[in-house]
Amino acid sequence: MVRVGIVGGTGYTGAELLRILACHPEASLAVITSRTDAGMPVAEMFPHLRGRVDLTFSPPDTPALSECDLVFFATPNGTAMEAVPGLLTRGVRVIDLAADFRLKDPDLWQTWYGLPHACPELLEEAVYGLPELHREAIRAARLVANPGCYPTAVTLGFKPLLAEGVIDPGWLIADVKSGVSGAGRKATTGLLMAEVGESFKAYSVMGHRHAPEIEQNLSTYAEAPLRLTFVPHLLPMIRGIEATLYARLQRRDVELDELYRRHYANEPFVDPMPGGSHPDTRSVRGANLCRLTAVSPRNSDVVIVQSVIDNLVKGAAGQAVQNMNLMFGLEERLGLDALALLP
Amino acid sequence: MVRVGIVGGTGYTGAELLRILACHPEASLAVITSRTDAGMPVAEMFPHLRGRVDLTFSPPDTPALSECDLVFFATPNGTAMEAVPGLLTRGVRVIDLAADFRLKDPDLWQTWYGLPHACPELLEEAVYGLPELHREAIRAARLVANPGCYPTAVTLGFKPLLAEGVIDPGWLIADVKSGVSGAGRKATTGLLMAEVGESFKAYSVMGHRHAPEIEQNLSTYAEAPLRLTFVPHLLPMIRGIEATLYARLQRRDVELDELYRRHYANEPFVDPMPGGSHPDTRSVRGANLCRLTAVSPRNSDVVIVQSVIDNLVKGAAGQAVQNMNLMFGLEERLGLDALALLP
Amino acid sequence: MVRVGIVGGTGYTGAELLRILACHPEASLAVITSRTDAGMPVAEMFPHLRGRVDLTFSPPDTPALSECDLVFFATPNGTAMEAVPGLLTRGVRVIDLAADFRLKDPDLWQTWYGLPHACPELLEEAVYGLPELHREAIRAARLVANPGCYPTAVTLGFKPLLAEGVIDPGWLIADVKSGVSGAGRKATTGLLMAEVGESFKAYSVMGHRHAPEIEQNLSTYAEAPLRLTFVPHLLPMIRGIEATLYARLQRRDVELDELYRRHYANEPFVDPMPGGSHPDTRSVRGANLCRLTAVSPRNSDVVIVQSVIDNLVKGAAGQAVQNMNLMFGLEERLGLDALALLP
Amino acid sequence: MVRVGIVGGTGYTGAELLRILACHPEASLAVITSRTDAGMPVAEMFPHLRGRVDLTFSPPDTPALSECDLVFFATPNGTAMEAVPGLLTRGVRVIDLAADFRLKDPDLWQTWYGLPHACPELLEEAVYGLPELHREAIRAARLVANPGCYPTAVTLGFKPLLAEGVIDPGWLIADVKSGVSGAGRKATTGLLMAEVGESFKAYSVMGHRHAPEIEQNLSTYAEAPLRLTFVPHLLPMIRGIEATLYARLQRRDVELDELYRRHYANEPFVDPMPGGSHPDTRSVRGANLCRLTAVSPRNSDVVIVQSVIDNLVKGAAGQAVQNMNLMFGLEERLGLDALALLP
Repeated sequence: MVRVGIVGGTGYTGAELLRILACHPEASLAVITSRTDAGMPVAEMFPHLRGRVDLTFSPPDTPALSECDLVFFATPNGTAMEAVPGLLTRGVRVIDLAADFRLKDPDLWQTWYGLPHACPELLEEAVYGLPELHREAIRAARLVANPGCYPTAVTLGFKPLLAEGVIDPGWLIADVKSGVSGAGRKATTGLLMAEVGESFKAYSVMGHRHAPEIEQNLSTYAEAPLRLTFVPHLLPMIRGIEATLYARLQRRDVELDELYRRHYANEPFVDPMPGGSHPDTRSVRGANLCRLTAVSPRNSDVVIVQSVIDNLVKGAAGQAVQNMNLMFGLEERLGLDALALLP
Repeated sequence: MVRVGIVGGTGYTGAELLRILACHPEASLAVITSRTDAGMPVAEMFPHLRGRVDLTFSPPDTPALSECDLVFFATPNGTAMEAVPGLLTRGVRVIDLAADFRLKDPDLWQTWYGLPHACPELLEEAVYGLPELHREAIRAARLVANPGCYPTAVTLGFKPLLAEGVIDPGWLIADVKSGVSGAGRKATTGLLMAEVGESFKAYSVMGHRHAPEIEQNLSTYAEAPLRLTFVPHLLPMIRGIEATLYARLQRRDVELDELYRRHYANEPFVDPMPGGSHPDTRSVRGANLCRLTAVSPRNSDVVIVQSVIDNLVKGAAGQAVQNMNLMFGLEERLGLDALALLP
Repeated sequence: MVRVGIVGGTGYTGAELLRILACHPEASLAVITSRTDAGMPVAEMFPHLRGRVDLTFSPPDTPALSECDLVFFATPNGTAMEAVPGLLTRGVRVIDLAADFRLKDPDLWQTWYGLPHACPELLEEAVYGLPELHREAIRAARLVANPGCYPTAVTLGFKPLLAEGVIDPGWLIADVKSGVSGAGRKATTGLLMAEVGESFKAYSVMGHRHAPEIEQNLSTYAEAPLRLTFVPHLLPMIRGIEATLYARLQRRDVELDELYRRHYANEPFVDPMPGGSHPDTRSVRGANLCRLTAVSPRNSDVVIVQSVIDNLVKGAAGQAVQNMNLMFGLEERLGLDALALLP
Repeated sequence: MVRVGIVGGTGYTGAELLRILACHPEASLAVITSRTDAGMPVAEMFPHLRGRVDLTFSPPDTPALSECDLVFFATPNGTAMEAVPGLLTRGVRVIDLAADFRLKDPDLWQTWYGLPHACPELLEEAVYGLPELHREAIRAARLVANPGCYPTAVTLGFKPLLAEGVIDPGWLIADVKSGVSGAGRKATTGLLMAEVGESFKAYSVMGHRHAPEIEQNLSTYAEAPLRLTFVPHLLPMIRGIEATLYARLQRRDVELDELYRRHYANEPFVDPMPGGSHPDTRSVRGANLCRLTAVSPRNSDVVIVQSVIDNLVKGAAGQAVQNMNLMFGLEERLGLDALALLP
C-alpha cells in the first residue's frame, strides 16, 4: 500500500486525483493540503466525494507530508520547486502535476514562467512522466514531472511520424482545442459560463507555454530542427482535448494505420484507430486514454493526425497515477480501468 | 459468475448497462441484441467501449438469450412483455428497464401506454425494483420491473415524509427536470442540440406516464388519497435529474434531517444531506446514488425536498445492476462503487 | 432625442442596455461610467459593440451625468441609493435596474439587503417599473425601480389569477429557473463554466430577495394574506428564465385561456399562449417579451402556469428601455422590436 | 418594396431568413413553401415568430412564387436547380442558399454532390454571392449562388494574403470549427444533444464539399497552383464558425494589420481586428459580420489568421439579404444592423 499525500488539492487536478485514488486498491490517501481552505472537510468542497473521502484539508506545512511514500503536487506553477528538495531529502518521492520540472533548460523555464527556477540542479534528474516515452526511467525516478495536457495529446500524435522520418520536422502545425477545466478552478471573469459558454475562440496565438515542452519532447525524434506552430483554442465544454495535427509527408511508402498500431502495440492507454475515424473527446471522458488516428487525404502530401484525451485524466491526474503505479512496481493499469462516461 | 444478456442495446440505457457490466467482477456479458443493428460490433456504435466490449449485436431471436441466467430488456415500452413469458418459462430471470411491468393495473397501463398488456398475469408477480422499498422481494424475484427515472427521484424524496404522516398526501407537487439523455437515442428533431441546447421548457404538463407510477409507489404510505401534480422539464444538458418537491406539513414536531438520516441509514445508495444543502446533479453524474435533503423555510408550513440522481444510473442501468446483485446473492454494491465524475 | 447616461456599465445588464440603446432611434448615449474600468473603451470590454459604441468608460463622479435627461443605474444593490437624490435634485430622471427602490418598506429592504436604506424618503415616490401593472404612473415618474428578473416572470404569471379571485392566495408555489447571466459578471468560482455547466441545482431554498418583491406586487390583487413558496434554480445555459407556478383553484367557472388573453389583450410585450403550450426560453431570447400559458390538468384543482422571459431583456434592460419610452412620451415599442434569436 | 418568396422554409436557414426579413423595411414576405409542412402556420413551427410572421407554409408548386420579385431557396442541395430555370424565365430573380450554383464546373459539382447538374448552362451566369469579391456583378445578377458558411469565413481570411502575394498558395491549411446549426434541422441521431453536447471532434477529414468551393474562390488570387488542406470540426454549441488558417509567408515586408485594414476599409460587414486579438464567435452571434485578424509569431515564417462569423447570418441568411439589397438597389446594410447578442 502506497502512502500518498497531495499538496494543493482544491483545483480540478487535485479533485481528479482524489476521485481516482479513492478507488485505487493499493494507494492510501494520508494527507491533503490547502493554503486557503485548511480545516475544511474535502467533501464539503467537492460534494461528489461525500461518504468516500473523509479527509480534511491540512495546512501546507503539515509534517504528515514527510511521512508519505509519495507526494503529488497539484499546485500552481512555481510552488512545487520550493518544497520538493526538502521532501526528496527525507526520502519522499514526488510527482509534480504543474510545470516546475518539465523543461530541462532553466533559462527557457524562466522565459516562459516568469521567475528564476528555485532548484535548477534537479531539472536533469527529474523524469518527464510520459510513460510512452520514458517508462523505464519513470520506474526508478525520485521526481517525476507530469506532462502538460496539450503536450500529452500532441506528443503522442506526432511521435510515430517523426521517429520514422515520415514527416518534415520543419513544418509542424498543432491546432489544439481544450475544454474549460484545463484553465483551472480560479475565480476569473474570463472563465464564467456566461463568457465561455456557446462561444469559441483561439487564445495565446503569439505563444503558449506548452510549445517549448512539446518541442523538447519531439526534438529527440527529429532529424532536423523542429519548427512547430501551436495554437490553442477554448471549447464551450468542461472536459476534453482534441488536437488536429498537420505535417508534410517526406516519405510516401508508409502505411499510416500500420505505423501507429505498431508503435503503440503494447501501450495500455493509447488506442490507435483506423484511418477515416473521427475520435471524439467524449469517447475518453473520465478515462486514462489517448485515442488517435492519422490519414493523408488522396493526392495530398499532408498528413492529418487527430488525437483526443481527457485533459484531467490522461492529461493530468490519470497519467500521474499511471506514473505512481510504475514508480512503485504496481500493475500499470491499477485503478485506471474506468470506461469513459458516454453520453 | 452471472451469465447476462441484453435485449435492445443501442439506446443510452443499453450503453450504460454495457459500461457498468464491463467492469462488474461477477457478471459475464454473453449476448446483446439489436433489431436494427445486428451484425455491427458494439464498439463501432459506442466508441467508448473500444477494446473493452468485444461483442457484436445479435438479432433479437438469438437462442443465446435462453442460456443466460439473467436478461435485461433495454427496449422501447411494449417490447419486453412479448418476450418475457417465454424466457421465464425457460428459467431465465428478467429485469425490464422499460415500463412494461411497472404498473400493477393492466387497464391503467393501457390508458397510459396505448396498447393492451400482453401478459397481464405477470403484473402481480413482477417486483418493482426500487431496493429502498422492496429489497427482500427483489432478492427472490424472477421478474423485476426497473423503476422509471423520475419515479426513482420523486419516490425516494417523498417517502419518508408520507411514511411518518408528516405531510398532507392530498397536495403534493413535483417539479422535476431532466437532462436530454432521458428522452433516449431516437432521431427526433425535438432532441437536436440546436433545438434543446441553451433553452429550457416544461413538457407533458397535461399528464405524464410517470405520474401513475409515482402514485402507485407512494399510495402505500399515504393515510389519505394521494393527489400529485407532476410537471417534467427538459434541461439543456445530458445527464441528471433534479426533483424539487413541495408538500404541506401536517405535523410540526419533526426534525427533517433526523427523519431522512434515520430512514436511509442503511441504504448504500441514498445520501441524505443536511438541511440548507443544495444537491447538484453533477455530484451524482455517473454514480448510482440519490442525494436528497428536506427543509421547511422559517414561518412556512411547506416542506421543500430536493432530490438528484443520474437518470441513466440510479435512474436506470445502475439500479438494474443493483437489482441484479440482490437477485443473485451478490454484495449489493458490487460494480457500483464508481465516484461521480466532477467536473 | 433623450440624452442618456449609464452608471455601472461593465456588467451584463449594462452591456445589454448598450446593445439596445445603440439601435434606439430616439436615445443618444452620452456617458457611461465604471469605477474599476474608467478610461477603457467600451468596445474593448465588449467586442460585440466594436464599431457601434465609441464611448470610453468615465469615472463615476463625472459631471456629464447631471447633463443627461435620464440616467440608468446598472450597479450592484446599494449603489444607486447614494447617488439618486443628487441627480433628481438636478432634474435628471432615473431608472434603477438594481433593487434599491423596489421595496416600499425600508425595514424589509434592510432585512433582505443587509444595510440601512440611504434615502427611505424616496421609496414612496419611486414607481415600480412593471408597465403591465403601473403604466400610467411610470409615464410621470422621476424615479423608476426596474423590477427584478424573477419577479417579472412570476408577477405576470400569477396576476390574472389573483386579480379575478381564481386561486387561493394562501398557497402559491413558484419553482423558477434562471440562466447564469442572471447572477452577473462577477469573478466567482461558483459561476465558472466548469462548475455550472452540465449541472443543475436549486439555490437559496431558505429564502431569496426576490420573494418579498413578488409578495409586494401580488398582495394588491389578493383577497387574503398571500403565502408564497419561491425556489430559484440555476440552469446550465446563459440567458432565460422559466417560472412554473402552482396554485389551488378556488373557482372552476373560469376559462383560463380567455382570462389570460383578456388580461393581456393590449400588452405589446406579453404573449398569452394557448393551454397545452410549452413556452421555451429560446422563443424569447434577446426579445423584450414574456410568453405565458395556464392550464389545469383534468380532474385536478391545481392550476399550472408557465412563464418565460429573457432575464436580461424583459427581465432587465429591455424593460428599462420600455420604461424610458413611457417616461419620455415615446412609442412604447421603440427600439424593442427585435425578434428572438432562435436557434 | 421587394416582394419576396422563400422555398423550403423549415430549416434553420429558412427560419433565419424569416427573422431577418420580418424586420426589413423594404422587403415584403409574400409566400413561403414547405413540401412536408404545407398548411402549418409558420409561427407554430417557429415560436419565436409568433405575432410577427402570419404566413402559413404553402405547397412548393404554389403559383405565388412566380409573382415574386425575388425567390430565396433554402432547400437541400439539388432542389433549386430543378425549379430555378422556370422562375428566371418568368422574370423572377433568385438567390440560392444551397450549393447548386456555387461551383462553375458541372463535373466537379457532380463529383461532390453525387448527381448530374440539372441546368449546367446557368452555372456560368450565376454570380457567387460574396459581396466582398463580386459586389458589382451581384447588383446586376438574375441568379446568385449564396456562399457556403465555411467558404465565407475561409475566403475572407485568406484573400488579402493571396491577393498581395504574401503567402505560398501551395501550402494552405484551414482548421475550421462550426456550431451544430450548420448541420441543419434534420432528425439525425448524430446531431442529438446527447451525442454532440460536451464533446468535440473533426469530421470529413478525407474531404468536404466546401473545399472545392474555397479553392475556386481563392485560385483567382493565387500566382501558383493552390493546395488547401481543409478540416472541419463540430463544436458543442449552436451558432458560430471559427476558422484558424495557417500559411507560409513568402514575403516578410508586409505589415499584416495594415494589409487587412486596407483590404476591408470599405466593407460594412468585415471587421479587421488588431494583431494579437482573439475574435470569439459570440462577438458576431446574430450579426451579419466577419471579424478577423492575422499575425505572424516572432521568429516564425507562418502566418495565422483567425476568422469568425455566425454561420446562419454572414454564413447564410444575412449574406443572402445583403445580396438582395445589392440586387434591388437598396442600401447594403438595410435590415442588417442588429448587434451581436452577447452574452
